[in-house]
Amino acid sequence: MELLKRRIINDGTEIGTEIVKVDSFLNHQLDIGLFMALGKEIYRRFGNMGINKILTIEASGIGIAAIAAIYFDLVPVVFAKKAQPSTMNEDFYGAPVKSFTKGTVSIAKVSKQYLSKDDKVLIIDDFLAHGEAAAGLANLVEQAGGTVCGIAAIVEKEFQGGSKKLRDLGYYVDSLAVITNIEDGKIYFKD
Amino acid sequence: MELLKRRIINDGTEIGTEIVKVDSFLNHQLDIGLFMALGKEIYRRFGNMGINKILTIEASGIGIAAIAAIYFDLVPVVFAKKAQPSTMNEDFYGAPVKSFTKGTVSIAKVSKQYLSKDDKVLIIDDFLAHGEAAAGLANLVEQAGGTVCGIAAIVEKEFQGGSKKLRDLGYYVDSLAVITNIEDGKIYFKD
Repeated sequence: MELLKRRIINDGTEIGTEIVKVDSFLNHQLDIGLFMALGKEIYRRFGNMGINKILTIEASGIGIAAIAAIYFDLVPVVFAKKAQPSTMNEDFYGAPVKSFTKGTVSIAKVSKQYLSKDDKVLIIDDFLAHGEAAAGLANLVEQAGGTVCGIAAIVEKEFQGGSKKLRDLGYYVDSLAVITNIEDGKIYFKD
Repeated sequence: MELLKRRIINDGTEIGTEIVKVDSFLNHQLDIGLFMALGKEIYRRFGNMGINKILTIEASGIGIAAIAAIYFDLVPVVFAKKAQPSTMNEDFYGAPVKSFTKGTVSIAKVSKQYLSKDDKVLIIDDFLAHGEAAAGLANLVEQAGGTVCGIAAIVEKEFQGGSKKLRDLGYYVDSLAVITNIEDGKIYFKD
């Protein structure tokens, strides 16, 4: 998506070999006009799959998931909470999610009331790096007996292997901007 | 707002003397059609104040803030992160936020890049109870030299004193549904 690539180039900061921060429009301050364009594009790519629920994980996935749902005929959005293993009980589905940056493991959890076998789910995540969060969310859907129709990421860092891992697990993945590598402060995109 | 009151009565759960959970449409699963009605109503109440930024706090305020921004001519949304005091540095504004339910204190923090003296800010919070989160957010705006135009809460539990506290501090507060008390499993609203 050209609009998004240009925005990442223009407003991405702290660009290292593996890092680009997009706090000014995606992760801390949210550009809602851009979010509407992203939501529309996600619908263009995933709109014919009979999706009836959008699943994301707190915190920064929530805004884009909420706006995208407008284009998906107002399907409900569920966000998984990041919790300590100690807070799990039988009312929740839970899946471990490793954070490579922090070196920690948390549990993505969703109340059993809000995922079911009838759900045809689109997973939306703002950043796809190692694919840990998306794999955890897919795991939750499957525990409920539902269907993962696809995984939409806004920004993918392809060189960290997340999309390959998710595709190897059998999931359909499509990212709006795919970064192939970052070198000498310059960001390279697929296509 | 009658639509919201009816929804709280119909779908609120775990109703105790101080508690009502609205996880099925506001805090965990998000009813985006309802969010659009809430966003429109917030605009009706706060739309003439020259607001140029919406501020909320992670996680469950983000969805409603993002949708509300559509009605406010796509003003940017900033969400404060809940952090440990140890993660603060000079790049952030920080304000302590006490959680009465958890008995803990965290820090609401916003990067100094995303709040400034030119900001005319609407604070949106999903739940207004003791008013700690909203007071912390207002504190952040003032540290930046900006103006708090108003505080919009979706569900207010008036009997916990948050709105009175915020008004005593000089802030304009308007909540879409005001619960005056909860007794014998029944919820009473203002008006």
